[in-house]
Amino acid sequence: MNEPDCPWCWKMETIDEFGASDVIWRFPHSVALLGMWQFYQGYCVLVSRSHATELNDLPTDERRAYLDEMCLLAQALQTGYRPHKLNYELLGNQVPHLHWHLFPRYLDDPERMSAVWLGIDKAEREGGAWRRRMETGREERATTAAKIRQALQNLGAPQA
Amino acid sequence: MNEPDCPWCWKMETIDEFGASDVIWRFPHSVALLGMWQFYQGYCVLVSRSHATELNDLPTDERRAYLDEMCLLAQALQTGYRPHKLNYELLGNQVPHLHWHLFPRYLDDPERMSAVWLGIDKAEREGGAWRRRMETGREERATTAAKIRQALQNLGAPQA
Repeated sequence: MNEPDCPWCWKMETIDEFGASDVIWRFPHSVALLGMWQFYQGYCVLVSRSHATELNDLPTDERRAYLDEMCLLAQALQTGYRPHKLNYELLGNQVPHLHWHLFPRYLDDPERMSAVWLGIDKAEREGGAWRRRMETGREERATTAAKIRQALQNLGAPQA
Repeated sequence: MNEPDCPWCWKMETIDEFGASDVIWRFPHSVALLGMWQFYQGYCVLVSRSHATELNDLPTDERRAYLDEMCLLAQALQTGYRPHKLNYELLGNQVPHLHWHLFPRYLDDPERMSAVWLGIDKAEREGGAWRRRMETGREERATTAAKIRQALQNLGAPQA
């Protein structure tokens, strides 16, 4: 484990305990997980295997490879779901271990002109029906994970 | 001009009309602009010179070069402002022409655990004092732009 107190390091260390509806793909430099807010059907989190706070904390080659993996995952989401737009976000405000949020955005989302965090913040504050709306996709999580995995396979994405 | 109806294409085409407090750096593949929400001191927008909706719409070499430029700008912000954390976001929900938002986050921001869009949404809805708070940095815009420019120069950033 890189950093014993880091929840993402912990998850990377224990990744074999998570099932196929959570873990989509094991890239050489990162792991793609299916995210919890499946209102944004296909939403993924791409967690760096190395513990680092900023992209520039990685060695240049590793940073470029991680960004290539992010683009491959984006391509798989584009192929699998044909979203209106993708949102790519690396924040780390709560857990400063590099992880990309990839949110597919769709034309039938009345809030598609805004950042996803307004809706997610409401889900976290209010819970209830709004939270269920934000967590629930149009298909089972296992189906979504399998679809993205298949798209990555078709793209010849590298695996570790 | 790439796309006559695209506001970012228009700005790229007329970039010489903007002053040194707006235009920070002309990279080969993108232009770094000082953003309007200077509560996040040093906030920049890095606009692709090519009109494209998704990163994967760029040729691979150009995409990698654009991401390298993004990391150089991030490095300049880290050197110039030593933020607690950087937020990297490529959304395009309103204008689907590739542009990175780079938001430095600081420890004295009571909302530092949340995405910036909650505060910005409030500024756009309410205006007034909150909007002024979000637009106003701790220094003049020209000073901020000059500081980031100097940091890029020290890093040997490529110019076009």
